[in-house]
Amino acid sequence: MSLLVQKFGGTSVGTVEKIEQVADKVARFRRDGHGLVVVVSAMAGETNRLIGLAHEVQDQPLPREMDVLVSTGEQVSTALLAMALNKRGVKAKSYNGSQVRILTDDAHTKARIRDIDDARLHADIEAGYVLVVAGFQGVDEHGNITTLGRGGSDTTAVALAAALKADECQIYTDVDGVYTTDPRMVDGAKRLDTITFEEMLEMASMGSKVLQIRAVEFAGKYSVPLRVLHSFEDGPGTLIRLEEESDMENPTIAGIAFNRDEAKITVLGVPDTPGVAYRILGPVGEANIEVDVIVQNVSEDGSTDFTFTVHRSEMDRAEAIIRQVAGELGARQVTADNKIAKISLVGVGMRSHAGVASQMFKTLSEVGINIQMISTSEIKISVIIDEKFIELAVRSLHSAFGLDQESSASAEVS
Amino acid sequence: MSLLVQKFGGTSVGTVEKIEQVADKVARFRRDGHGLVVVVSAMAGETNRLIGLAHEVQDQPLPREMDVLVSTGEQVSTALLAMALNKRGVKAKSYNGSQVRILTDDAHTKARIRDIDDARLHADIEAGYVLVVAGFQGVDEHGNITTLGRGGSDTTAVALAAALKADECQIYTDVDGVYTTDPRMVDGAKRLDTITFEEMLEMASMGSKVLQIRAVEFAGKYSVPLRVLHSFEDGPGTLIRLEEESDMENPTIAGIAFNRDEAKITVLGVPDTPGVAYRILGPVGEANIEVDVIVQNVSEDGSTDFTFTVHRSEMDRAEAIIRQVAGELGARQVTADNKIAKISLVGVGMRSHAGVASQMFKTLSEVGINIQMISTSEIKISVIIDEKFIELAVRSLHSAFGLDQESSASAEVS
Repeated sequence: MSLLVQKFGGTSVGTVEKIEQVADKVARFRRDGHGLVVVVSAMAGETNRLIGLAHEVQDQPLPREMDVLVSTGEQVSTALLAMALNKRGVKAKSYNGSQVRILTDDAHTKARIRDIDDARLHADIEAGYVLVVAGFQGVDEHGNITTLGRGGSDTTAVALAAALKADECQIYTDVDGVYTTDPRMVDGAKRLDTITFEEMLEMASMGSKVLQIRAVEFAGKYSVPLRVLHSFEDGPGTLIRLEEESDMENPTIAGIAFNRDEAKITVLGVPDTPGVAYRILGPVGEANIEVDVIVQNVSEDGSTDFTFTVHRSEMDRAEAIIRQVAGELGARQVTADNKIAKISLVGVGMRSHAGVASQMFKTLSEVGINIQMISTSEIKISVIIDEKFIELAVRSLHSAFGLDQESSASAEVS
Repeated sequence: MSLLVQKFGGTSVGTVEKIEQVADKVARFRRDGHGLVVVVSAMAGETNRLIGLAHEVQDQPLPREMDVLVSTGEQVSTALLAMALNKRGVKAKSYNGSQVRILTDDAHTKARIRDIDDARLHADIEAGYVLVVAGFQGVDEHGNITTLGRGGSDTTAVALAAALKADECQIYTDVDGVYTTDPRMVDGAKRLDTITFEEMLEMASMGSKVLQIRAVEFAGKYSVPLRVLHSFEDGPGTLIRLEEESDMENPTIAGIAFNRDEAKITVLGVPDTPGVAYRILGPVGEANIEVDVIVQNVSEDGSTDFTFTVHRSEMDRAEAIIRQVAGELGARQVTADNKIAKISLVGVGMRSHAGVASQMFKTLSEVGINIQMISTSEIKISVIIDEKFIELAVRSLHSAFGLDQESSASAEVS
């Protein structure tokens, strides 16, 4: 008998009918002899309803009370699922964050888990109960209710799996796994049987639609095998695994991530002196604007061009700051562009396979796409291109790197 | 500085707007220097919504999970009221039943309070917080969430007042106090400044619309001064007090209670032998039918007539049982009548004032009302009459006992 932690999100428990379907699935696992801990989110829409009430009362609701308020959403789901399991003859018991004792720090609305008391859970699992645990919530050391921030139910599931030394943590969602790229953009996108934690993290722009990044980091840190599956369809999903377990048959590239969330700001003709990067980006950071890609060209005639990207919604604010700074630095010109896309190839195979970057550039050049910025890490190559070429770029790269082949086949590069 | 426990029911916190009004009222008390513990119910309609969800899932919802589910309703109210107080510059902190530690037995959905841990509450009151406590809920010794049954928020308030040795427990509701009789029936009905616990209990049929009987019993047992007030209108309300504190100026009769909820079943011509009452009522009790008034006439020629009342909804069931029993007993006839009303005069003054009963009978006879049954206790006289005379009877008695005078005047009887 294996011990599984299963997590069902708000959409999966959004109606009584869906809760019944989840109960059917959980009951099947139970009859197969598995020990089960099921983590649930609030019914879809409920958290927003509660937040709406709070904002009717107070513009900036008291964080402690916000947590007291929204944590009720998950508690409702746990009770209803436990009832639905009971109706199917499956012994089940609900737990809220305080009852498990998911101990967190006291950072209300964005708390971090410190410790989980597994004694009571183990006793109830031994006694044959399916445990239905409220996701997203905990208590601080004084017994105040805390929440982990939105989407924190994934983190709850992973933390429970780590604490209980579960055999697998299964995240049920509305997709049947992690894909080589977004299937809505590329027909030939394939579900990956496995992906490493590092790749999953680098796939963030795509992966975050599937799994909370924080949960993936957590799972990697505690070596919790994590699997993404569809809530209402059967299938193996995608297993997120430690790299050490990978074999040589794995393809070089795991997938292609992309987004259109960013905007690019360029400072042209900056005097190339020590500290100039800090003088440009310091004020941006102080304004709490997150910077993603940063590129500084090689200096010519004592001046350089400096480009970085920010979230599109922050472009205007960032540009205003940079115009101020550019004046002080005596830069020649500042430009801003929000019609860009970022495309990233991700794969731990890059470490051992040369030529991925040149193959990527060659592919894009063959279809006439100009690369505006390039940024590389150990297992990722990102390029910034004109937004209008995003589909062409993703499809061409998906095909060039053999991602539309059966996923068991290895995609060798140049 | 006095310590007050205030309770606001579901209607009083039914909308964000009403929660704001409650916050205004609580804030005023706080500025007047009172220490405050505020007990709230779920927003009106919320408990029914949650119960509805449960019944969609399971015909007879698991009681443990029912408590987990419905207890969220009060928790939502506490958070919103704490936010509303905070917005007014009043330091406030919410508590659910588990956080206070309102320890109960494990009778889910109808638990009874065993103990309240007042240490943390006292510390927060000392620190200047208004404590906003979820009514109706507690935890058993294993940390399982329990509820006290519907309306249990009154009991929570009284129990907290007893544990904290509060100066007064104020129950805010949609009436401005306890009346001599129902003001909808008698224009001259007066609000009582005070009433004793015993009278309040005997007034149950009226009083239960104002206060949970269990809370009144609890308050009496622990000598907690209890006051009923209107949530949104100012006024002194009605103080429910220990009889020992009463003075001789109190009127004989506190009020007139009445109901039309009962039906009467009569067995005529029963052989008057020992054990006959048990043989008639035993099977009724075994069928879980509650019997209220019981009257057995003096025996003539070896046979007697036996009459009792039950709730109207149980009449048909009770009649069927009695017809069976009557056959076995050789009784002459069984009749059933659901067109009856019960009218009760209540007052601790009856103990020291003779003649209340005869005055009552005289008044009813003067307006031509026939009395079908009579039942008396130490502080109450009840009569059963034809339902169609209920208004005439209540108005005549209200006037005859001087209850439409100013409540400070004493109503002396014959």
